[in-house]
Amino acid sequence: MQATFFPGVGVNAADMSDFEAVTSRVRERVDPTTAERERLRDAADRLVSRVEDALADLDVDADVVRVGSTARGTWVRGDRDIDVFVRFDADLPREDLERLGLAVGNRVLPDGHEEYAEHPYVKGSFEGYDVDLVPCYRVADATKIQSAVDRTPFHNAYLVERLTEDLAADVRLFKQFLKGIGAYGSDLRTRGFSGYLTELLVLEYGGFEEALDAAANWHPQVVLDPEDHGTREFDDPLVVIDPTDPERNVAAVVSPEQVARVQHYARRLLADPREDVFFPEEPEPLTPADVERHLARRGTSALAVRFETPDLVEDQLYPQLRRSREGLVRGLEDAGFDVLRSAAWADDVSILFVELASGTLPAIERHDGPPVHVEEHATGFYDAYANEDVYGPFIDGDRYVVERERETRTAVAFADERLPEVALGARVASLVEDGEYDVLADEEVAVLAEPFGAAFARYFDPTP
Amino acid sequence: MQATFFPGVGVNAADMSDFEAVTSRVRERVDPTTAERERLRDAADRLVSRVEDALADLDVDADVVRVGSTARGTWVRGDRDIDVFVRFDADLPREDLERLGLAVGNRVLPDGHEEYAEHPYVKGSFEGYDVDLVPCYRVADATKIQSAVDRTPFHNAYLVERLTEDLAADVRLFKQFLKGIGAYGSDLRTRGFSGYLTELLVLEYGGFEEALDAAANWHPQVVLDPEDHGTREFDDPLVVIDPTDPERNVAAVVSPEQVARVQHYARRLLADPREDVFFPEEPEPLTPADVERHLARRGTSALAVRFETPDLVEDQLYPQLRRSREGLVRGLEDAGFDVLRSAAWADDVSILFVELASGTLPAIERHDGPPVHVEEHATGFYDAYANEDVYGPFIDGDRYVVERERETRTAVAFADERLPEVALGARVASLVEDGEYDVLADEEVAVLAEPFGAAFARYFDPTP
Repeated sequence: MQATFFPGVGVNAADMSDFEAVTSRVRERVDPTTAERERLRDAADRLVSRVEDALADLDVDADVVRVGSTARGTWVRGDRDIDVFVRFDADLPREDLERLGLAVGNRVLPDGHEEYAEHPYVKGSFEGYDVDLVPCYRVADATKIQSAVDRTPFHNAYLVERLTEDLAADVRLFKQFLKGIGAYGSDLRTRGFSGYLTELLVLEYGGFEEALDAAANWHPQVVLDPEDHGTREFDDPLVVIDPTDPERNVAAVVSPEQVARVQHYARRLLADPREDVFFPEEPEPLTPADVERHLARRGTSALAVRFETPDLVEDQLYPQLRRSREGLVRGLEDAGFDVLRSAAWADDVSILFVELASGTLPAIERHDGPPVHVEEHATGFYDAYANEDVYGPFIDGDRYVVERERETRTAVAFADERLPEVALGARVASLVEDGEYDVLADEEVAVLAEPFGAAFARYFDPTP
Repeated sequence: MQATFFPGVGVNAADMSDFEAVTSRVRERVDPTTAERERLRDAADRLVSRVEDALADLDVDADVVRVGSTARGTWVRGDRDIDVFVRFDADLPREDLERLGLAVGNRVLPDGHEEYAEHPYVKGSFEGYDVDLVPCYRVADATKIQSAVDRTPFHNAYLVERLTEDLAADVRLFKQFLKGIGAYGSDLRTRGFSGYLTELLVLEYGGFEEALDAAANWHPQVVLDPEDHGTREFDDPLVVIDPTDPERNVAAVVSPEQVARVQHYARRLLADPREDVFFPEEPEPLTPADVERHLARRGTSALAVRFETPDLVEDQLYPQLRRSREGLVRGLEDAGFDVLRSAAWADDVSILFVELASGTLPAIERHDGPPVHVEEHATGFYDAYANEDVYGPFIDGDRYVVERERETRTAVAFADERLPEVALGARVASLVEDGEYDVLADEEVAVLAEPFGAAFARYFDPTP
């Protein structure tokens, strides 16, 4: 690889590989500045004091732990999250924990609001930072947890103990890489890599480049067990046994597609290091004319089912959209349509988008019956169709065949009439039951460039 | 079953089942009349004398055997075939057998012409009968034959010895049944049941109704071995070991479809005896307008490849047409088209006819690559397409996928441009190589109602 001189990088670029040169420039962009670190540390200290004061005022027996990336030095420049956990005694009744947790939260973050994970907590703002103030139980070890959030302090302790400055810096690189390729986040829209998982992988492999090297060569199922204490089997393509819980796969949410994406970009980045993998340009949103032109060029038939986006959090919305899209695709395929690709996008409205080889099928469909020699079935088949308005039953090879009238000849008719038959996400299903959706086909879908122009851009230029 | 009175049948109809009543009427139509039998016997006797005289004149040591259905009393009324075999000594050189055989033939049938099976023979007319005069070798048993025709006298002797009057009558019924359903004949167009096979089945099962009962319950592979001496395994759906040759399957040519057809009609005839199974009406040929109306009703796309029928005997022509049709269908399917049904018909012109769900496909085709984790293949796939004018490679599930330009978007373009790529019968292939064919699509195929109106009628009303 050719060494290149990059002024202003602060390292003698002539000594660096392309990979080092690129990552060095990325580090310059993702490492928090000294001023940022100091501001954050000071703000966090004041926040923790406020929480401790509130606990004292309320005469509550609990301690305070900072967790998350800003507690471990693994945050990417510009992140403004401070996570504070308040640990209550393990035998405090659940309703007391919830009540006291909210009381402390509301006192510390008077402008905050309540959110709900496994139990309620307070989210608010403090000196310009986004703060989560979460009550949990103080348990002996992570296998004794009463609620998923009780695990977080153990994760924090495990990582704080092991992440050196250099490893923390590599975690930032890896996070930015995952963000750049769209694989960062364990939310159910992304189904990608959580911060904790990213940190474990850098720890396990010993650095960012080492993690890329490993990922480039993964043969799923990949199983990592840093503490060598796993007790269960998993079906997931990537398994990273939680060092604080032998029964938990930290990577359970990661989809096969995200594993493949990481492998793809790991190889690309190692073979041809480029900064834009970390900081990709947003695609130019397509106009309606662009969408029409793409469809015409592809010679396909488009179908969109449009409805008002259900009022759900993203972790409920996106699984329902995915399920609905898969249900629509399977329904169309079962009805004889050839689906090339599909997508589901949400804004104020949501759409299930399907691209078909053809939106129209013949009036008849071929239906193969049993071999003639399977007497009972064969006779049953023949008798069932002999007096129906079908072509046949006739004999093809050793089987009976009929060509019968197709129930649904167009994809639009399928979407108009048979959508309630398919497996849909719950809220989408109830909209569909009530007829609260409309169907667009072919050039009609072009209007969806507003608001989905960027999504269409990625759809029609999908090269990763 | 309800007994019915059929006047004129010559049996007390009140005592008969529907099945007996129907077959009794069929017997009336297929049994040769007494006058016919006598005329045939007399003519055959005179013919054999003429052959013996010719052998004496030529001073040749050979004997004369009458074979075939008219020799065994199993012919169907109106058949006018007399088969005479001249058996020469087994050590006569082949060229002498051929020379002497033709000499005798030409002397007995001065208006005849030479035909060629495994060796030449003379075909001609005698007192209004169609005569085959075939030279063969007189061998000790059928396993010692020097040519396939040497086997025939053994078949004849085997059957003459065993076929009673009643069984011979049932053979006639079975033959007419097979003729009626289109399954009679071991030629390579029909791929059905030969006369000899029909006779063996009636012998083996003990009658026509018994053979139908058996066929209705066949579970292919069906193996019959009347002499219990078979020494080989066969792949064919129906295996009847030749009583005169343990290594030969008499039913080798019977297609799975013809086995299924016999099973189907056997069940129908037993369940609902009808004379028209034996004597079906020819369908009314379709007009061009009929063909157009059918295609419009079916909503399909039609494609026909038309060429002058190669000058071949039927046993060569039809296998070549079948192979060509199968090659075209496979080629279209490999190119992404969905074929509903196909046919191949011959007259002065021949056509390969294909009915498609759609004659036009999208401009792009989806091409799935390897899973991303199969590093070498995956990287090879990515590199091969990364700079091509395709959509992708993108990641779908755990795989790379591209959508690339489809080579051939229409079935017509496939037939115009890519027909030489597919597996065709030899003579069809050379016509295609020379561009000596044309392609008709959709409503253009309607003109083929001339001369294929009857074939179209069966195609669009295929219920057996």
